[in-house]
Amino acid sequence: MRNNLVSVLPVLLILTISGALSSAQKMRSGPEDAIRAADQHWARVFAAKDLENSVAFCAENASVLAPNAPIATGKQAIGQLFSGFFALPSLTIEWHPTKVEVARSGELGYSTGVYQMSFKDSSGKLVTDRGKYVTVWKKQADGSWRVALDIFNSDLPATAAS
Amino acid sequence: MRNNLVSVLPVLLILTISGALSSAQKMRSGPEDAIRAADQHWARVFAAKDLENSVAFCAENASVLAPNAPIATGKQAIGQLFSGFFALPSLTIEWHPTKVEVARSGELGYSTGVYQMSFKDSSGKLVTDRGKYVTVWKKQADGSWRVALDIFNSDLPATAAS
Repeated sequence: MRNNLVSVLPVLLILTISGALSSAQKMRSGPEDAIRAADQHWARVFAAKDLENSVAFCAENASVLAPNAPIATGKQAIGQLFSGFFALPSLTIEWHPTKVEVARSGELGYSTGVYQMSFKDSSGKLVTDRGKYVTVWKKQADGSWRVALDIFNSDLPATAAS
Repeated sequence: MRNNLVSVLPVLLILTISGALSSAQKMRSGPEDAIRAADQHWARVFAAKDLENSVAFCAENASVLAPNAPIATGKQAIGQLFSGFFALPSLTIEWHPTKVEVARSGELGYSTGVYQMSFKDSSGKLVTDRGKYVTVWKKQADGSWRVALDIFNSDLPATAAS
């Protein structure tokens, strides 16, 4: 019995240590996970063309820096910009973060990743685009993460888009 | 004399308090000033087409997300991207931050602002562009700020660029 206990002890110790490490890692990666979840929640409401919830992800005085358009600052301007997107015929859009990083102080971070979208142009031709983005996130007083800045651009040659 | 001192005391107190507040403000805005200075130093070496120093502003594993191009990650890929820019005939470029923000922990921040550039296309015609950018900065072990991510896009309609 004692022999059995001695042989089992290192295993228990390893399990305990790995459990503690896993908890520590979870604690450390908490804000990154929260931003990743917010990023993907935002992507879902955007893909669903849900204007109210898409704008609600933006902080007061947030700016969206879309290509081939002036900067949209504040919820009203962002709402107008998003409305223009959602009006594109047959719009489909998705994006996925490839990297998320949060400051040690836990109130400022960013997500960066890739997007794919398609829509029909005025002649009914399907236009597809893919590119990349950076979103700066700020933690709000209520603990939620909101977009402070969002900017993206296409991977495709300029001529392909026109 | 005593009356004079009494009448002067509130003034001295106000000067002392405002001096302390100003110092506190300076301390708080220190990292923002450092990022703003790094942003503008980077703009100067870039405008001078100084490839080595332009790349040196980027952290290891930094990514530059240029429009109409794939993501360039790492100093070699970024060097190739910048070389392509610097090879544009008669290139002039400048950018200026309009906002800088740093996390409370002081190691992660961003600058965002506007750029203007011009160059001659293959037919010798002057092409001008203006747009906006977001740069994510990370403080290095030596105290310097280096670019972790840089992304920009044009304000002009897509057709104007082609």
